Amino acid sequence: MAPAELTGTSTALLTDHYELTMLGSALTDGTGDRDCVFEVFARRLPNGRRYGVVAGTARVLDAIADFRFTDAELTQLEQTAVVDSDTLSWLADYRFTGDIDGYPEGELYFPGSPILTVRGTFAEAVLLETLLLSILNHDSAIASAAARMSSAAAGRPIIEMGGRRTHEMSAVAAARAAYLAGFATTSNLEAGRRYGIPTRGTTAHAFVLLHDSEEAAFRAQVAKMGADTTLLVDTYDITKGIETAVRVAGPELGAIRIDSGDVGVLARKAREQLDALGAKDTRIMVSGDLDEHAIAALRAEPVDAYGVGTSVVTGSGAPTAGMVYKLVEVNGRPVAKRSEHKASRGGRKSALRRHKPTGTALEEVVYPTGKPPERGEHDRELMIPLMRSGQPVDDLPTLEDGRQRLRRGLVSLPWEGLKLSHGEPAIPTTFS
Amino acid sequence: MAPAELTGTSTALLTDHYELTMLGSALTDGTGDRDCVFEVFARRLPNGRRYGVVAGTARVLDAIADFRFTDAELTQLEQTAVVDSDTLSWLADYRFTGDIDGYPEGELYFPGSPILTVRGTFAEAVLLETLLLSILNHDSAIASAAARMSSAAAGRPIIEMGGRRTHEMSAVAAARAAYLAGFATTSNLEAGRRYGIPTRGTTAHAFVLLHDSEEAAFRAQVAKMGADTTLLVDTYDITKGIETAVRVAGPELGAIRIDSGDVGVLARKAREQLDALGAKDTRIMVSGDLDEHAIAALRAEPVDAYGVGTSVVTGSGAPTAGMVYKLVEVNGRPVAKRSEHKASRGGRKSALRRHKPTGTALEEVVYPTGKPPERGEHDRELMIPLMRSGQPVDDLPTLEDGRQRLRRGLVSLPWEGLKLSHGEPAIPTTFS
Repeated sequence: MAPAELTGTSTALLTDHYELTMLGSALTDGTGDRDCVFEVFARRLPNGRRYGVVAGTARVLDAIADFRFTDAELTQLEQTAVVDSDTLSWLADYRFTGDIDGYPEGELYFPGSPILTVRGTFAEAVLLETLLLSILNHDSAIASAAARMSSAAAGRPIIEMGGRRTHEMSAVAAARAAYLAGFATTSNLEAGRRYGIPTRGTTAHAFVLLHDSEEAAFRAQVAKMGADTTLLVDTYDITKGIETAVRVAGPELGAIRIDSGDVGVLARKAREQLDALGAKDTRIMVSGDLDEHAIAALRAEPVDAYGVGTSVVTGSGAPTAGMVYKLVEVNGRPVAKRSEHKASRGGRKSALRRHKPTGTALEEVVYPTGKPPERGEHDRELMIPLMRSGQPVDDLPTLEDGRQRLRRGLVSLPWEGLKLSHGEPAIPTTFS
Repeated sequence: MAPAELTGTSTALLTDHYELTMLGSALTDGTGDRDCVFEVFARRLPNGRRYGVVAGTARVLDAIADFRFTDAELTQLEQTAVVDSDTLSWLADYRFTGDIDGYPEGELYFPGSPILTVRGTFAEAVLLETLLLSILNHDSAIASAAARMSSAAAGRPIIEMGGRRTHEMSAVAAARAAYLAGFATTSNLEAGRRYGIPTRGTTAHAFVLLHDSEEAAFRAQVAKMGADTTLLVDTYDITKGIETAVRVAGPELGAIRIDSGDVGVLARKAREQLDALGAKDTRIMVSGDLDEHAIAALRAEPVDAYGVGTSVVTGSGAPTAGMVYKLVEVNGRPVAKRSEHKASRGGRKSALRRHKPTGTALEEVVYPTGKPPERGEHDRELMIPLMRSGQPVDDLPTLEDGRQRLRRGLVSLPWEGLKLSHGEPAIPTTFS
């Protein structure tokens, strides 16, 4: 029994009206049965970024499993006359039965990288366009921004805490994408449940304000959570807050958090004060409008952990990855839009990445599937099978695999590829 | 029986870990029972915008109804040791029983406007912070951007078609927010189902590429959908595409769509060509990376409808509204963060907007609830009751009410408030 029928969580209407009208026309004139290849790629990286990070692939596979037209969806389409009765009958039996290959999660991508290819009849593959793009565009945008932050943090842990700044369900996916990209933990409890990501959190300013004094709030927190907790010291005066924090929790206090102001300067003063109070092992966590640039600027400061919210869940200036889903092959024949603008390359493609003997990436080579270029010793094929005949393949990479893959990928970039400034992609894409 | 138990769609974990740890501490030390007022407001409008648009309020009320800790949520919190067993028992019985007032959807807001106030015990009200902010921050960001586009379109219809550029569930909420802000239709079928928004769509480039020729594709579409459809004419050569379109559909062709290139120039040429072919009533729809500035620049061109995607679902440069949820009153006593940065104003507040006799808005007056300033003849109270004792009030405004409210609101702005350039808020906020 399909999950969609059981739970009422069909993903089938998370799509654009025109997928259904195209389907209706294609079923009528017989072209719906043609074998097609659709390809997901990005024409460019946003904002002068130097690399992108693939994320969302696992969510895509789950969403396809739930892509079912149950009675509820069919009734809606009938009542709004989106499609005719023949098309409704076809939809009632719809299951995606095709094949999907793609870049695994955590893989780097560049302009033109064939991030995902979907093979099936036109009818079955065209329906997935919107849902696949929604997931990949969102999750990859977040992971791409988060990777820059992880890289700027240079080993210091980052907690993702931006759920409140984005749609309540985006928040869950954003926590996942940030974790994939190296964040240590998230504040989002649903991401903890769905994806097993470790969650963290202690108290907000409201907790201090609720109490008759800062000291009363700290006492309540330490009584409940022990001295190894994080006390938020900037509700009133930070210096007094730190003094009170150490008085209440003792020098065993786990951490303080500073959430406002010039956090670099404040962290330095806080470190001196904590050390003077004997709280030499008390960590300093900073938060408040941090992005990758702010994190990089704090590298020399005595900061032990970062809390990042708005900037990561909004993709730090690039809230979408701009990926498209293009028909590239029909019955084995390459097809492509040929107009002056937004032209694309036809034919099913594969990709490999060339590296120097030292492991440094040199170029992304995109080639017609089945016609690989001469292989070098340090080339690496980038695509893996994800789905066969509508079923996910065995042993798909896990979220942890993706984290490790990205870590290796970032190490392989030429040094200028890790710069935060605007620039060209870290490696060129060659079409062979 | 609560929907959450029936459908497994509890919203209770769409929240931050620290809400639960604060709750645990507050239940233990007894402060959890204190009567509190939390206030949602924005410190500033993003990006030099001149007004914001409230959206998401109706979704907030639905989400609170589904905020239940069922066995599944309690098990997760127990297994991950987020809270202790006393807190778990408390959560098992959790229902929000407090009161909520706020700006209705479609109302304009400005820095400091008390968009929503939540009254209840600390324990019950603190839990809602993240979920309420997620919804209001997302939906208001989209509506605020969409309103600028509607205003720039000056009566020409806009179809929202950006679902593929944002998280799959954000897409549904974004379609709703865009519709609230004056968009005519959406491509998103789930938004059609959930909110009754009219959906539209015909075909993509893939449909043309699927066929052996553009003519074959147009014939298939017209055979299925009639001549009053929209043919996409820019897959190959636009001039030939238009010629073929009119040959196939006749001069009764409903519309053409141009999705790439310099759409202003192309629309002008297309209009001439269509007129010369006798297709004088055939409409021209343009799409492709349009935002409010591009729409404004097309005002003098013969464009009949706009399709807007990426820019609207990403808030056109401001993907979040930056609203916060602050504790402002405890047991009747005003409270506020007093540190140097991010200071806020304590006490429960209400708001009214002053207008000239002509109806033009003059200022937003925020005042302590129960102490209204002297009322002028053209003042209008801005907040309405939304929830009483945990139940939504009767006769809540509908989505259509919100559309009309916003239309009236935009008309009331001083003329410079509708400028698209960066600037100050259209009216000042005064705290009395």
